[in-house]
This record gives sequence, C-alpha cells and structure tokens, in this order.
Amino acid sequence: MAEYIAPIKRLIEEFRKLPGVGAKTAVRYAFATLALEEHELEQFADAIIGAKRDVHTCPVCCGLTASEGKCEICSDEYRDPSLICVVESPKDIMVMEKVRSYRGTYHVLGGVLSPIDNISADDLNVKELIARAEQGGIREVIVATNPTPSGDTTAAYLARILEPYNIEVSRLAYGIPVGGDIEYADEVTLHRAMEGRKYFGN
Amino acid sequence: MAEYIAPIKRLIEEFRKLPGVGAKTAVRYAFATLALEEHELEQFADAIIGAKRDVHTCPVCCGLTASEGKCEICSDEYRDPSLICVVESPKDIMVMEKVRSYRGTYHVLGGVLSPIDNISADDLNVKELIARAEQGGIREVIVATNPTPSGDTTAAYLARILEPYNIEVSRLAYGIPVGGDIEYADEVTLHRAMEGRKYFGN
Repeated sequence: MAEYIAPIKRLIEEFRKLPGVGAKTAVRYAFATLALEEHELEQFADAIIGAKRDVHTCPVCCGLTASEGKCEICSDEYRDPSLICVVESPKDIMVMEKVRSYRGTYHVLGGVLSPIDNISADDLNVKELIARAEQGGIREVIVATNPTPSGDTTAAYLARILEPYNIEVSRLAYGIPVGGDIEYADEVTLHRAMEGRKYFGN
Repeated sequence: MAEYIAPIKRLIEEFRKLPGVGAKTAVRYAFATLALEEHELEQFADAIIGAKRDVHTCPVCCGLTASEGKCEICSDEYRDPSLICVVESPKDIMVMEKVRSYRGTYHVLGGVLSPIDNISADDLNVKELIARAEQGGIREVIVATNPTPSGDTTAAYLARILEPYNIEVSRLAYGIPVGGDIEYADEVTLHRAMEGRKYFGN
C-alpha cells in the first residue's frame, strides 16, 4: 500500500488545488469530508458546481452577482454613481465595504498590470472602466489596488488613461496601520507615512 | 450589501465545515474555486460525492477500501496476519505505513474510549477486534492510539479484554522525538523517556 485508495487520493488532489493547502492539510480535509453524511456531501458538491452556475458578472462593475444583469451595488439607487472605487478582485469589494462611510460604486479590474506575468491592460477590465468614463457623470476614481509595486503601477496607469475624461483619480493613503506599533512598521511604510503626514490646524 | 452573494456565501459555509478553516480561509477557498474551469468544478464536486460512493469499509480491519470486500492490506499475502497494529482512524494506517519495516496488519478502532464525549467500547470497532482474536492465529496486538490520556486508557482496556486469548498486547514507546531538541520536550515526555530508557550492552 503506502498509498491512499483511489477515491481518497482523488479527493486529496482536489483539495490541494486550493490556495495554501499542502499535502497534510489536504489529507485532513479529505478525511473530514469522508466523515460527512451523504446529503452533506451532495450539498458541498452542489455548492462547488454552483460557483459557475449561479454566479454572473455585473456588466457595469465586472463584480460578481447572483442574478443576471446589474449587481446589487450598481443597481442600488442610494449609491453615488459618480464615485468609483477600483479594486483588484471581487472579494476586495467586501473588504472595502467594511468602510461603512463609502457609498460610491466599484470597478473590479480582475488583477493588476504585471509584465512579468504577461498581464497587460487588455487582460484586465480596463476597457469597461473607460466605457464608464465615456458615459460621463464620474467625479472621482479611487484606486484601491494592493500596496505593491504592481498595484502602484496600475494606479498610475489608470490615472493617465482617465486624464482625458476630467476625472479626479486618487489612491488609498499609505501609512502606519491604526493600532499598530511603529516599532514593527517596515522602513518603506514609515517613509510613506512621513511623506503623507498631516499637519494639525489646517 | 456587506454580504457575499448567495452562491458564494453557500460555498464559504461549506468550506467552513472543514477542520481548522475559519472565515478568512473559507473566503479564500471559495474565490479560488470560483476561478476554476467548469470541468474542474465538476471533477471537484464528483470527488466529494465519491467520498461515500466509492469508499467501503474492510470487513476485517474496518479500514477503508476502494473495492467491496477485504482491503488491500488484509488481502496481501506477504503481510503477517498474526500481527495487528490498532490505530484510531483510517488515516493513521498511512502514518504507520511510513514505518516500512512493519509488515503486519491493522485494525481501525474508529476513535478512543472517552466517557466525556460519551464514547464507549460499543461505539468503537472493538467487537470486530475480538472477532479476529476469537478466530485465533493472532500473536501480538500493538496499540498505536495517540499519546493522550484517552489513548492510554483505550490501550489498557484492549490489553484487558484481549487477555483471555493469549495475545501479547504492546503500546508504542513514549520518548523524545528523533532529531528533536531535549530543551523543547515537555516534562511529561521527558519523564516517560527516562522511564523507558534503554541500557547499553544488553
């Protein structure tokens, strides 16, 4: 033996495809799955199938939606459509939604520019963003790509291509995290925090 | 919003059922699943369904097998059937199989005695072990339950009930792990390592 039986091996291999799951974790997941009841397994399997079947892309923001047509946020009339927050991936929308004061809309890029990975503007939802800009009525685009070199490059690129449309383009501020300890901040972050310092009394 | 769309929420909830998977990890898994191709999703879903459909229990050792009837190890004629290594769960067989010198068979208990969790001998595959003992031809039972109080209790219990059959019952040795550092061994392990010390020249 020294090998798991075929159906278990297959299950382990499937779990290994998940991000950050190594051999041991996959084995743990596979045996936990084996312990589930038959109807639970069917429910689990159906939820996975549903990932394609029940999920659609919003034609406006390129985010995900359960119904065809515009997503919940894009069709929410209490949202400010003149404000667009550009994020890398659909799940970043949920991250930004934690900022309860933000009542604008979103645009999902689907990644960032990365020459190394051969990802150019054509691979991202850039033309959809330009289409929104061309339609007019956009006041500001807040670029919320990750604080990485690729995220910065992408933000600068978007600022440049949106220039003709008279739209203000901004980027999330860099700085020390609230509640963090200066001692543990890296020097690049500290440098950015110095650069972006706020003066009192203004 | 502030909530994921229904099919994603469903998928997140399914992944949260896996051991050690919290909210953030489940979200990560769900979005990684979303990124899979349709045929990959079907394959994943089918592997999960297969966990019940294609996995059977060996009538001899209570381990898992892909075919009905005896498992691969129990039907391997190069294995010594007079030697049984008792393990808690089917996956522990694979752990023990790493000890390549072991050529006996196994018996999966399906847990350990635990009055707190209301697990008695009737909930474990104890009667199947007794049936094997009654059939005769068993020389030794090596109890490889985990080094926990419940594991110890279970080992002692098995030793007692196997007494009438004239079978030697042993337990895996406690001690410091090979390659480990004495500094990091806890005092109970050190105490057991002292107790089980080997004399040179014997």
